[in-house]
Amino acid sequence: MPEISKRGMLMPNSPIRKLVPLAEAAQNRGCKVYRLNIGQPDLLTAPKAMEAIRNISANVIEYGHSAGNESLRRKFASFYEKIGVSLNYEDILITTGGSEAITLTLLTCLNAGDEIIVPEPFYANYFSFATAADVKVVPVTSNIENGFALPPISEFEQKITPRTKAIIICNPNNPTGYLYSWKELEQIRDLVVKYNLFFICDEVYRELCYDDNEIRSSMLLEGIDKHLILIDSVSKRYSATGLRVGVMASRNHDLLQTALKFCQARLCPPNIGQLAAEAALDSPPEYCEYIYNSFLERRNFLVKALNEIPGIYCPTPKGAFYTMVRLPVDDAEKFAMWMLQEFEYNKQTVMLAPGSGFYTTPGSGKQEVRIAYVLNIEDLGNAMDCLKRGLAQYPGRV
Amino acid sequence: MPEISKRGMLMPNSPIRKLVPLAEAAQNRGCKVYRLNIGQPDLLTAPKAMEAIRNISANVIEYGHSAGNESLRRKFASFYEKIGVSLNYEDILITTGGSEAITLTLLTCLNAGDEIIVPEPFYANYFSFATAADVKVVPVTSNIENGFALPPISEFEQKITPRTKAIIICNPNNPTGYLYSWKELEQIRDLVVKYNLFFICDEVYRELCYDDNEIRSSMLLEGIDKHLILIDSVSKRYSATGLRVGVMASRNHDLLQTALKFCQARLCPPNIGQLAAEAALDSPPEYCEYIYNSFLERRNFLVKALNEIPGIYCPTPKGAFYTMVRLPVDDAEKFAMWMLQEFEYNKQTVMLAPGSGFYTTPGSGKQEVRIAYVLNIEDLGNAMDCLKRGLAQYPGRV
Repeated sequence: MPEISKRGMLMPNSPIRKLVPLAEAAQNRGCKVYRLNIGQPDLLTAPKAMEAIRNISANVIEYGHSAGNESLRRKFASFYEKIGVSLNYEDILITTGGSEAITLTLLTCLNAGDEIIVPEPFYANYFSFATAADVKVVPVTSNIENGFALPPISEFEQKITPRTKAIIICNPNNPTGYLYSWKELEQIRDLVVKYNLFFICDEVYRELCYDDNEIRSSMLLEGIDKHLILIDSVSKRYSATGLRVGVMASRNHDLLQTALKFCQARLCPPNIGQLAAEAALDSPPEYCEYIYNSFLERRNFLVKALNEIPGIYCPTPKGAFYTMVRLPVDDAEKFAMWMLQEFEYNKQTVMLAPGSGFYTTPGSGKQEVRIAYVLNIEDLGNAMDCLKRGLAQYPGRV
Repeated sequence: MPEISKRGMLMPNSPIRKLVPLAEAAQNRGCKVYRLNIGQPDLLTAPKAMEAIRNISANVIEYGHSAGNESLRRKFASFYEKIGVSLNYEDILITTGGSEAITLTLLTCLNAGDEIIVPEPFYANYFSFATAADVKVVPVTSNIENGFALPPISEFEQKITPRTKAIIICNPNNPTGYLYSWKELEQIRDLVVKYNLFFICDEVYRELCYDDNEIRSSMLLEGIDKHLILIDSVSKRYSATGLRVGVMASRNHDLLQTALKFCQARLCPPNIGQLAAEAALDSPPEYCEYIYNSFLERRNFLVKALNEIPGIYCPTPKGAFYTMVRLPVDDAEKFAMWMLQEFEYNKQTVMLAPGSGFYTTPGSGKQEVRIAYVLNIEDLGNAMDCLKRGLAQYPGRV
């Protein structure tokens, strides 16, 4: 047969690929599996979005504009204005989820063989998007001890080579929940200006910042309009991950014009999703509070519960709905498999995302797992019970 | 500012980019513009799809499976079985439109720098997808004189180099409406086996074949299961282009497993679209006949009307809803611009897609335009009136 492409062979397997069949087997033997491994919240999708879907008046679902429907682009511009960010609708492209926004950005900004610097642990799919685009990911390692704060900017500077074209961060961060400070953003700003790089800022969790932390969008940074690309999405803010509606925004119109050519090739983003997203952006404050308060309550509950389990270290995440946790185990992936394969308590167990999947530096994150607090408090409580008892029994405990 | 990527700079502009502002200006001065340039039919989207959207019961629009919802994959398998094609649901990946299916196929099958052979004129976005994937498009020119039949297979063979990895065709064809014969498909089959290539067959217009021509899917070819990739979509069959639901199918599971890794990175296809597509696949025969008969009637009307206009040559397309037409003009793009800028009849004019946008061989298609018969008969009649009168007045007539 003809050979598969090299980039195909380089694409990483899902970090949970070994766990999925084990979770299914556990369920098949009647064991409830609490899935803390994936960013799929159980919260209601914005009712306004559902209403728009149910009341759709069109009888022909046509192609939309390749840049996204203008009404939706204008609605996003108003949305950003409310958080103090001035963007014209022409600064905004609608994409098929934040995923496509990242792919478009990589294709537009980086050549095959170019390098992108990212603080690790990082969202695992960044590596996949980069591999698909023949781009090399260069990690700068952050540490659980200081809650995964931005590593010293000198470490980024040391990684810069003639092939470096961009820095990407996720703020607030998936997988760590860390919220970058304004000072940290300014440090990156100064670096991208000094070395003439692009700065890609993924803010899909922007509205989820806790403890009175002010979230300031990277779009408020001055002097880098030509460098800055904002990635956004309705997935998390409106609990509507399946709509696949995201945003790529920039005040650099040469860049957007080029990105639009890639958009034209794929014709348009999903149109029912756009309709729903536009309605979701009109959600009343009560809905946004429901989302916010649900995650805040879960975070407070989860972090306390985790830190009460002997041997676990969990920094307090300031945003998003994840936390990276250090477990007292030899190998977090082995432990995660053991929990599904060998353990159950009251016919229940948990599924965790092994931390190593969020690092590219070999050996990193071996004792860590990412936990998504996407379940209700009762389920989270049961899951923590399982985790505590599992750790107590696990033969590879250290 | 940092430089845009080379692939971004190589991405083609839309072949109608010069026409769009002219069409808008014409409309702004009160002139009706019949848009024959785009494959957006005015026909009703499958009512079953609209019903499924309006009756959605879920209150959380979650991520679906990266391979597509299993129920939809199984529905497609049954659909193919009805046309005599045996495919298991595991042979099928659901994609974000046929567009993504092509991108995934290129990324999975070809390395950066590899070559793909395509008969030209071809769907212009193939070139864009290839450019985004750093793949080189190698055209083999077909001719209007024989209705754009497959060029002699020896011409394909001459273009094969050590970098050739695949052949792609669209059957029935966009932009020509040509329906490849079984014998032609077998010639390609023999060639891909001889040179160990992939064969990508884009059949998004499969159900639109006229004049008692039997359409036989490439999936019925024997002996190339490891080579063959089918591209499909619900866009045209159910007049639902904005749903963005397509298919990449193959019996080569190594290939699909690799494609799935690209799918996992982007999480899932749009979920409301999948719901609607699944319902659309259950459309009664009456709906499919409505679509089929509408296009058949339009084709018959259009081809006759075109060939009655002095100097026009229009072969009879056997499928899809396009025809490539030779006009008695110096330059079809100039003529298309002139029609929007300088001409109107009864406050009406037409928008045509210049033929050169469907060729990569320089100078080819200069007298040709692609016409999509996506308007009702009355509008088509008015459009043909305009075209006839425009040609009579056009100063660059030859």
